[in-house]
Order: sequence, then structure tokens, then C-alpha cells
Amino acid sequence: MNLVIVGSVALDTVETPFGKVVRALGGTATFGSIAASYFSSPGIVGVVGGDFEQRHTNLLKRRGVDLEGLQIVPDRKTFQWSGYYEGDMNRAITKATHLNVFKTFRPIIPPEYRRAPFLFLGNIQPDLQLDVLRQMKKPKVVLCDTMNYWIESQPARLERVFRRSDVICVNDAEARQFTGCESLPKAARNLLKLGPRRVIIKLGGYGVQMYGKDSFFALPALPLTKVKDPTGAGDTFAGGFIGSLVQADRLDDHAYRKALAIGTVMASFCVQDFSCRATANLTRPAIRRRLASLRALTYFSSLG
Amino acid sequence: MNLVIVGSVALDTVETPFGKVVRALGGTATFGSIAASYFSSPGIVGVVGGDFEQRHTNLLKRRGVDLEGLQIVPDRKTFQWSGYYEGDMNRAITKATHLNVFKTFRPIIPPEYRRAPFLFLGNIQPDLQLDVLRQMKKPKVVLCDTMNYWIESQPARLERVFRRSDVICVNDAEARQFTGCESLPKAARNLLKLGPRRVIIKLGGYGVQMYGKDSFFALPALPLTKVKDPTGAGDTFAGGFIGSLVQADRLDDHAYRKALAIGTVMASFCVQDFSCRATANLTRPAIRRRLASLRALTYFSSLG
Repeated sequence: MNLVIVGSVALDTVETPFGKVVRALGGTATFGSIAASYFSSPGIVGVVGGDFEQRHTNLLKRRGVDLEGLQIVPDRKTFQWSGYYEGDMNRAITKATHLNVFKTFRPIIPPEYRRAPFLFLGNIQPDLQLDVLRQMKKPKVVLCDTMNYWIESQPARLERVFRRSDVICVNDAEARQFTGCESLPKAARNLLKLGPRRVIIKLGGYGVQMYGKDSFFALPALPLTKVKDPTGAGDTFAGGFIGSLVQADRLDDHAYRKALAIGTVMASFCVQDFSCRATANLTRPAIRRRLASLRALTYFSSLG
Repeated sequence: MNLVIVGSVALDTVETPFGKVVRALGGTATFGSIAASYFSSPGIVGVVGGDFEQRHTNLLKRRGVDLEGLQIVPDRKTFQWSGYYEGDMNRAITKATHLNVFKTFRPIIPPEYRRAPFLFLGNIQPDLQLDVLRQMKKPKVVLCDTMNYWIESQPARLERVFRRSDVICVNDAEARQFTGCESLPKAARNLLKLGPRRVIIKLGGYGVQMYGKDSFFALPALPLTKVKDPTGAGDTFAGGFIGSLVQADRLDDHAYRKALAIGTVMASFCVQDFSCRATANLTRPAIRRRLASLRALTYFSSLG
């Protein structure tokens, strides 16, 4: 186990113009660990209720995900989210959020997880993220995500998390909201001042940008005509990204770029089907082929 | 003269958080021809009034732009636009549009322009675009642009223009509006059905996508922290794009990709200063350097 992923495990009810799923497997730790499982040995830290079905546990185990850190509260229910997407499906509209067991979730890092060199701190309360950091023994890379709710309600606590992270991974709206900068390059520069090695800004269907102190890298999203369900794309991206970093010999710019490409590719699989149906059943050759497509579609020769 | 550019020549009054210019040189034919002038010999077809100053004409001549097709109406005024940008400056807010001479503009292609192999049909009334196509003698590549106003008011006429174009160059909102598709890959596929070789969808600060029948290419915008004035970026992009195509030995995918990169680079210069201040004073080495930066920021190695 070389990667710890802390975050929600959820049952999602999702409706899009292309269909509907009811209580399907979802959540940050789920999407993230499945994506990371092709490149690393992830273990998840999260919580589920007694209603969490064996087939979900089996799916994660089949992907080699360690579940030692998954707390089970038999007499309560798993976190449930329901929502829908319309039009270009760039934004989820929430119908209902039932936190259930997730409301009182306190992440407990199992002893055998604590020395893991990589940590994906999914979107939870900043104080809980800080608590996780205290339990871990100096991970080499901490990637953190968050959401608008924490930016609004606990910006100072969140800043402490950002200051202790190696990679800040947010979307464009969150980057603007946290920094108060409309310009994304300026927002990224401000976030870099907090000390991370890289700031990643996710642009949904427009791709992703990655800023370092003296580096910049960007990738478009793959041009998919069949997008069924964007749920989990961001978490899948982050899981693929940090999973790829685990494989790197050295954490240089080269490794970060490749990780961004892997994250992009994994997210492109995610959105092509509901829940984790597409990402749970991939092969390395399929991933490699799509990575080659992504490379091809951004390649041009220099000026003659 | 190997490239004809038909479009507005304007005097722009623009205010942004970074300053203001009054009656500065602007318009599609201006921005487009200046960008194209580094790679081709453009001639413009447009109209100005008696108030169009000699220094503007001189600037265009200095860039090698042929002005044979520029009509001058001494007793009337040049097209004037005034507007401003706020926040992330992704959208211009118009304060006033005075069409003046542009209102009754009828493009007349000078005899020595008619056999030019490349044509950039800027955003004017679709019937006038069709009229230009009738006057030209089989250009090899016709690139056309348009705007929301013509999509709403004259979609059928506009469709005729699209059907006779080799490259349709629109922004994301226009692509969605014309096709009724929220998904950009779907919108592009519908536009491709009209017969062009390439559909370009401009995404402002998020970059640009290019769709062919069996090809896709995308580039991010360069991460500029100093964006002074976005006016003319789209026209500068299109001018750089088609200018680059003029230089190509063969019009293959390779040439189209390079053209998209050149357009992106020229647009990045444009937004760094007001009017055409930045693009009018470039050197080939400066362009080549920025093209190398763009290449570097999209490069990643394949999966090991």
C-alpha cells in the first residue's frame, strides 16, 4: 500500500439525458482509488453504513483497493447523493444530500497506512484534513482537493491545509473564489505562494492547467461525443494523477506532466458511463492507447 | 498578394482594468491582416471614412498590407465601436456601435485580388459574404467567421456561406447557437456535415479546438498573467491561422495544426497590449520563441 485516499464513499442517484442510476457506487475515495489502482496500491479511509452492499466491496477489492481504513457503521446508512445534469452537463444540480454516516466521520488512519508516501486528501472538512496530516508520517506527496462550501465557511483552516500540501487540485471556480482573482494564471500564482509544488486547475470539458513556480502545462479534454455522466470525473482525474506519480522514479516536471495526462485520460473514461462502470473495467493497453490519442491531439511541429 | 481579408476596419474606444484607448485602430481586416502579414502577403477589402488617419494607413502599409481594396468615403465617418471589459475580461460589453460607412459597405474585390488562393471572410452580413465568394476565382481555402446576430437573424443564408467554406471559425457560444448542440464535439460534428475541411471552435482564455472529419486537435491558451485588452484576439487568431496556411507546402493535417498553433501565438501577443500595438511590432524570432513555449507547455512523454 503506497497511496492513502481519504474521502467519501457514497451511493449516488444520478440522472442525465442518457439515463439514470439509483444508489450506484460513488464518492471521492471510490472514484479516486479505482483510477489510482491501475498505477499504484491504494488504500482508502472512509466510512459506510450497514446498507453498503457486498458487491461494492467486492468491486473495490477486485481492483486491489485496500479496505482496512474503511469504517463500517452497521446500524446507520451510507452517504447518499442524488442529482442530475442537463444541457452540456458541465454542472451537477443537487436534488438531495444525505450525509448519514459521513456527517460524523472522523478519519482514522490504520497503522499500516501511516508511512504511505502518497496521500490524496479528498474534499472533507479542513480540520479533518489537518487531522489526517497529523496521523500520517511525512508523506512525500500530499494532494488536496476541496469545495466551495469550505472556501466560504473556513478559508483560514483551508489555507492551513493548502500550506501543507504538495499539490492543490481545484476547479476554476474554486481557484477564483479562494484567491479573489478572476485571472486563472493570477489565481494560480497566489495559490503557489502558499508553498505547493504544483497547482492544478480543472476546467471541466475544457481540460486542465497545471502551474509550478517556473513551469506551466495544460491539456485539453479529449473530444468525447458520448458523455453519459460526468459524476466522479474530478476524483477520477485526481486518483489517476497521484497514482501515476507513485510510479515515477523522480518527482520532476516530466513526472508531473505525465501524471496530468494520465489523470485526463482516466477522467475521459469515467464520463463515458455511469458511476465507475467504465473505469472499473479497464486494461493497461486501453489506457495506453488513449494516452497516445491525447498525445497525438496536442502535437504540432515547430516553425520551419 | 496571396490572401484576401474581407471585414471591418474600425476605430475602437476600449476600456479595461489596465487602461483605455480612444479611437484606436481596430476591426477584423486590421487585426487579421497584421497577424497574417508575418507569413503571407495580405490585401484587405473594407471601407473607411474621411476621418481615417494617415498614420493608420501607414501602419498597415508598413506591415506590407495591400490597401487596393480599401474603399475611402471622404465625406463620411469610419466604423466606430466602444466598449469595456471587466473581471476576467472574457466578454466585451458594448457601449456604442456606430456603423457609419460600414452600414452601406459593399465589398468590391479588386481584379488583382480575385485569383488569390486564400480568403478570410470576416464577420459581415452572410449575403455580402456570398457576394465576395461570387467575385473570387476559386480560392483554395476560404475561412469564414460570423457572429450571434447573423446566426439568429439569417441562419439559412449563413448556412450557405458555411457550405462554401473550407474552414468555419466560430467561438463556443456561436457553435452551440447555430447547431443547437450543447456538446461542442457534437456541434462540431454537425458543422462538419456542411462540408468544411475543418471546424475551429475558439474558447477564449481556455484555448481552441479544431475538428476535421477524422481528426481532432486542441491547444490551451498561453498562461498570460498580463492581459491588457482582449479586443481583436479572435481576428488576430484567424489572421495568423490563414497566414500560416499560405506558407504550407501541402494543406494536410500537419499544416492545419501548425496554423492553429500560429493563430494561438499571434492572439497571445494581441491581448498583451491595446489595439494592435503588440502585433504590429513583432519579429519572426519573437514569434518562433513563443511558438516553442506553446509546444513545450503541451508536451508530455508517453506511458513507459
